[in-house]
Amino acid sequence: MTAQAESQGGTCWGLGVGPGAPDLITLRAHRILQSAPVIAYPAPETGDSLARAIAAPHIPAGRVEIAIRTPMVPGHHPAHATYDTYAAQIADHLAAGRDVAVLCEGDPFFYGSFMYLFERLAAGHRVEVVPGVSSLGACAAAAGLPLLSRMDVLTVIPGPLSDADLERRLATPGAKAVMKVGRHLDKIRAVLDRLGLAERARYVERATMDGQVVRPLADLDGRDAPYFSMILVPAPDVADDA
Amino acid sequence: MTAQAESQGGTCWGLGVGPGAPDLITLRAHRILQSAPVIAYPAPETGDSLARAIAAPHIPAGRVEIAIRTPMVPGHHPAHATYDTYAAQIADHLAAGRDVAVLCEGDPFFYGSFMYLFERLAAGHRVEVVPGVSSLGACAAAAGLPLLSRMDVLTVIPGPLSDADLERRLATPGAKAVMKVGRHLDKIRAVLDRLGLAERARYVERATMDGQVVRPLADLDGRDAPYFSMILVPAPDVADDA
Repeated sequence: MTAQAESQGGTCWGLGVGPGAPDLITLRAHRILQSAPVIAYPAPETGDSLARAIAAPHIPAGRVEIAIRTPMVPGHHPAHATYDTYAAQIADHLAAGRDVAVLCEGDPFFYGSFMYLFERLAAGHRVEVVPGVSSLGACAAAAGLPLLSRMDVLTVIPGPLSDADLERRLATPGAKAVMKVGRHLDKIRAVLDRLGLAERARYVERATMDGQVVRPLADLDGRDAPYFSMILVPAPDVADDA
Repeated sequence: MTAQAESQGGTCWGLGVGPGAPDLITLRAHRILQSAPVIAYPAPETGDSLARAIAAPHIPAGRVEIAIRTPMVPGHHPAHATYDTYAAQIADHLAAGRDVAVLCEGDPFFYGSFMYLFERLAAGHRVEVVPGVSSLGACAAAAGLPLLSRMDVLTVIPGPLSDADLERRLATPGAKAVMKVGRHLDKIRAVLDRLGLAERARYVERATMDGQVVRPLADLDGRDAPYFSMILVPAPDVADDA
């Protein structure tokens, strides 16, 4: 960051808005939303932004809004040219002295796309990250499921991994959380079955949002899981205690 | 939970109060703190409670307060008899129709001691968990360090593990976060050195609090790390991108 950027430019805030319920946003993120003149958020190529929907009750009228629309191709690298374009647009606002709040579902650095903007902006601008409640904490809370105790390892695993990678990771001791279940549900369930873990696993979808679903994985039949769903496998000592 | 408990008893709230800065509490936790007549929080055998210090600006005067003082013996199982006693004390308030807010540093189910009360109370009372910003998100934000991207595995590792367990876990691909560094700093650093990961590792202490420290691990000399400190090792693809 140059001295000039520090003294005159606006701040880019990476704002964690939490997992879904609007009142699971932090006081800090709420305060920043009241004052930032520019609001940006990830959005699908067409349709509404989940991050904006979560924060909607807290966004004052009359803000400049930037929908960061990127092609979502599962398993592929994010569109670098697209992020270059949006970063430049945000940089123009910062250079003009306007703060920009970038809304991030959950926590900005917990599998968030904010990192692609952070990488492009942090060298030349003031960029601050406001951590948020992650989907992991929200799913465990929704399920009423302590995941691990003091000396347990936690492994967080993206659901789109290959069968072999999933099996290797799920076989390690400790607690496991499989994120982004979506269309990979059957594959993940088959691996958990093979490892004898399916009985202990809990499925959570839309945690803290309207339409929240919490089920033992074993009770889940022929369901289409949305992208924002998770499978939790508590550590054995916790499962035994409970 | 019995029908009677549901209709007449108070609610026990496991309230995540976030990682340290008082404004990183959620709107929901803040609202519950305004109304709960009884506030409980973990505390050391003597001295002040960190969870209470974090929430202090939000606690109205005149509340009944319960300091849950448990012996902290690193690596050992929590004192079951002690938790039985405090759970009974909380249950009395619930039975009398009084809500009890149990303050939890960070997120209640992310290595939190709330699970020991949850296990004792959830069967007979209404117990609700309000997820909070975890130390993990706070440390990554404080360090300005994206940890992982879309297909990376994250492994969260308690620092007190043995040399061999630490090495096995830190050697797996993906991002790593070593929690509860404290007096285990030298041991953890030696393992990271052996694995060639020390150069990429970042040390964070008291994230989002007064006296926050963020350093490359390599620059850390002869320091006494506090219990609430963390070492972050980003996934290689993220480290390369940044």
